[in-house]
Amino acid sequence: MTPVPMTLVTIIAEHVLREPLTADLRRLGARGYSIGEVEGEGTRGLHTQDWQGKNLRIETVVPADVAAAILAHLAARYFDDYAMIAYTSTVAVLRSGKFA
Amino acid sequence: MTPVPMTLVTIIAEHVLREPLTADLRRLGARGYSIGEVEGEGTRGLHTQDWQGKNLRIETVVPADVAAAILAHLAARYFDDYAMIAYTSTVAVLRSGKFA
Amino acid sequence: MTPVPMTLVTIIAEHVLREPLTADLRRLGARGYSIGEVEGEGTRGLHTQDWQGKNLRIETVVPADVAAAILAHLAARYFDDYAMIAYTSTVAVLRSGKFA
Repeated sequence: MTPVPMTLVTIIAEHVLREPLTADLRRLGARGYSIGEVEGEGTRGLHTQDWQGKNLRIETVVPADVAAAILAHLAARYFDDYAMIAYTSTVAVLRSGKFA
Repeated sequence: MTPVPMTLVTIIAEHVLREPLTADLRRLGARGYSIGEVEGEGTRGLHTQDWQGKNLRIETVVPADVAAAILAHLAARYFDDYAMIAYTSTVAVLRSGKFA
Repeated sequence: MTPVPMTLVTIIAEHVLREPLTADLRRLGARGYSIGEVEGEGTRGLHTQDWQGKNLRIETVVPADVAAAILAHLAARYFDDYAMIAYTSTVAVLRSGKFA
């Protein structure tokens, strides 16, 4: 079994977005995802600390075109109104038949 | 101190596999690992949601040959019977003498 | 909106370092970070298990020069006295205006 190159998408976002984000991921083609809890703190501009609190850390491993669609959707739908960061990297993946 | 290129292996698996997986990692050459809790949801084939629940997210940073041995072992030992995804990426690593 | 290449820094460290590490990150130029809980186990040298317990998993996405400064600081300040691992990788990042 040979690992397959795919794109790991990681999203750090507010809890209130859990349901809409996971629905978005499924609709855009993700076959699975994992959600962890993190505490975050961030700053913007002049202030040392503009927000802090519990956030979601969502990971999904998807084909590159699905990753691009996810990021484009996040930016268009959420970035004006929510604190969110999303980043991608290429990973080599093995999945069991039970997983996906 | 210069960062060293190594392979980060991430494994998302069912809780029941915690003890066997960590024993496997040690036996195959990992000198340390971290385990976090995630919630997961996955689909396979025709069904929109085939499993969901709490999973382990295990990370270990190892030489490339150890990573290859880990992935080969996971596929041979677990993939027929368990929902599991494993992925690797290359990272630049610094470790304290206290760590490993 | 185009993803920007940045450096993801991941630090696994003892809980006691939470406050000093996050202060370090801010001072060295990180605009935000996320902290998760992991359980860890590590070995060094001859012993099969030298430490285990709860650790912090801190992530921050920063420019490459900030990442280099963070790793150099960690090595100089903490590596002699604490169990710690830090690793970096390049990621493609989108951030909302609300985030940073």
